[in-house]
Amino acid sequence: MSLAELAPQYIRAIAPYQPGKPISELAREMGLDPAKIVKLASNENPLGISPKARAAMERELADISRYPDGNGFELKAKIAQKFGVEQKQIVLGNGSNDLLEMIAHAFLVPGDSSVYSQYAFAVYPLAVQATGARGIQVRAIDYGHDLSAMRAAIEPSTKIVWIANPNNPTGTLARPGDLVEFFEQCPKNVLIVLDEAYTEYLAPERRPDSLGWLKKYPNIIITRTLSKAYGLAGLRVGFALASPEVADIVNRIRQPFNVNSLAQAAACAALDDEEFLRESVRINNEGMKQITAAFVRMGVPFIPGYGNFVTFHCGDAQMLNRFMLERGVIVRPLGGYNMPNSLRVSIGLPEENARFIEVLEEAMKV
Amino acid sequence: MSLAELAPQYIRAIAPYQPGKPISELAREMGLDPAKIVKLASNENPLGISPKARAAMERELADISRYPDGNGFELKAKIAQKFGVEQKQIVLGNGSNDLLEMIAHAFLVPGDSSVYSQYAFAVYPLAVQATGARGIQVRAIDYGHDLSAMRAAIEPSTKIVWIANPNNPTGTLARPGDLVEFFEQCPKNVLIVLDEAYTEYLAPERRPDSLGWLKKYPNIIITRTLSKAYGLAGLRVGFALASPEVADIVNRIRQPFNVNSLAQAAACAALDDEEFLRESVRINNEGMKQITAAFVRMGVPFIPGYGNFVTFHCGDAQMLNRFMLERGVIVRPLGGYNMPNSLRVSIGLPEENARFIEVLEEAMKV
Repeated sequence: MSLAELAPQYIRAIAPYQPGKPISELAREMGLDPAKIVKLASNENPLGISPKARAAMERELADISRYPDGNGFELKAKIAQKFGVEQKQIVLGNGSNDLLEMIAHAFLVPGDSSVYSQYAFAVYPLAVQATGARGIQVRAIDYGHDLSAMRAAIEPSTKIVWIANPNNPTGTLARPGDLVEFFEQCPKNVLIVLDEAYTEYLAPERRPDSLGWLKKYPNIIITRTLSKAYGLAGLRVGFALASPEVADIVNRIRQPFNVNSLAQAAACAALDDEEFLRESVRINNEGMKQITAAFVRMGVPFIPGYGNFVTFHCGDAQMLNRFMLERGVIVRPLGGYNMPNSLRVSIGLPEENARFIEVLEEAMKV
Repeated sequence: MSLAELAPQYIRAIAPYQPGKPISELAREMGLDPAKIVKLASNENPLGISPKARAAMERELADISRYPDGNGFELKAKIAQKFGVEQKQIVLGNGSNDLLEMIAHAFLVPGDSSVYSQYAFAVYPLAVQATGARGIQVRAIDYGHDLSAMRAAIEPSTKIVWIANPNNPTGTLARPGDLVEFFEQCPKNVLIVLDEAYTEYLAPERRPDSLGWLKKYPNIIITRTLSKAYGLAGLRVGFALASPEVADIVNRIRQPFNVNSLAQAAACAALDDEEFLRESVRINNEGMKQITAAFVRMGVPFIPGYGNFVTFHCGDAQMLNRFMLERGVIVRPLGGYNMPNSLRVSIGLPEENARFIEVLEEAMKV
């Protein structure tokens, strides 16, 4: 017998998540100068991080041989104050990926099922599969969540429904009215994960009242990340907001030191730095205009999106991706999403966007 | 129905791990000056971190808005070179806690069982419980692993045996001959986790040839951490070494960005800094002598240990712990290990050890 066979079949069958290619990896593979590579592949903040977050990290460095505060006292206090929730409603995560996996692991067992949309974030099916539960994928509508169909897909065995809003990698946003209708119709004993990793990029008038919804529908779990607009992707920090009862369960399987000390310190400072957040959103709005205007000009079809990225369609995405990589531009292929004719580009700094547009124009002439 | 009841009973029953009390928490609770608190509660490195690791972190700060390298290319290359293993034998973890949980999650399902020793590291029973498998606790012998009894406790349903060497919180070390006998007799389809979190503190002549064993017994999984002698507890980084087949399974459920960018950079530098490691071991050896000599002088019974901590026995540990906390000295109560009459003290700097001894002497006069 092989030792691998000790693992259940559903674990052996997992095909791990494929991250965006790091700059260092492309530099090695193609012999390129890392300083000249433009990475628009992982929806990172091109402005870097808040100077206040950086200062907080520098202060924390002196104590890095100490374990992190396993209870995350200061970070939870900050989140509670900023979002008007109680501390017992909070779960801290090593990025929101950690939260999604904890939620799946806390509630799903073989025999259960879990509903998500076609083209929704790839971690949902992976997190479900790792528990041995059955994933139910619901066909998307215009690349977004078909909430009526998702409601109809819920079975007696369904424990969790996943909704990404805005969705990654397609950038779509659900209408608040449709979401409320979904919450109303969803059985009260089915958990609804509302993944709001990109919510900070929404214009105020479009931002859904998810915290208000949580008060009314205790089966909602909101997940947020500091990896996007807050710029802390490399540090790994996210949080979930839920009813105290649900948060308590997820906290039982949280690793005591899942969020490192620097991440906790930087997150506290970043959540306070409204100015950096505003600037991040402003530069994203401008870059979004810059890139989509170029798509329109070149006749490249794309999915209008609400995050810090755009998915566009091209004939042979694999070939275009290769063409771009050779020229030091990293975007994200979506073959793993069954979108072999599409690529996702993150919004970068104006000059990074310009380089992407330039290489795209070059490719279209070939 | 309560939403918590959606989780399986074994998840609802988890009592989360209780970490050592952070300095900031004690300062808040007792109104003490944090600068005057001595924390000897979490087996941290009192020297801090390698200056080379610190420099590596500082360099990495500039890129912290980028996701970490999900494949951990440089860190794996460093580990492979330093320990003479192939990269496909390595699993990176967000501390070794992450590795222990991943191993449990990858292999155990309800109906399986898993064997560990009384007084062994508390995360083993927790990690097993979170999978719904059954934990089999084997009575310790002289506070250490009774390897014959553990062998005898293996059932047909047993998939994983956990061995901490040295063990935390008792500091005991298994004899190499006994371990080899255990490996020989253990069924080949049972995984043996050899947790070597404290191995760097062992004198060279006592250090077991675990890498040699791994070559011979592919069912061994060695876990190591950079939180102890390497001083990176706050950053969270550890690694497992296993046969390629076993490592491949565990890597399937590894979160792609479980090890943050700073941890990867600092770990690479720390693994290279032999001088810092030697100094950490030297100061630990001296502190161990300082504290155990005081125990002998005062007639305080203790368990001779091989890590960077000592467990000692006292009448009412809860009262002594309280007495120490009030005086700004944090040690670790072991009630969770069913050792209500014992405390564990980490080896600190000479002056920290002296303060601990002073307060202990004061307590014994009361």
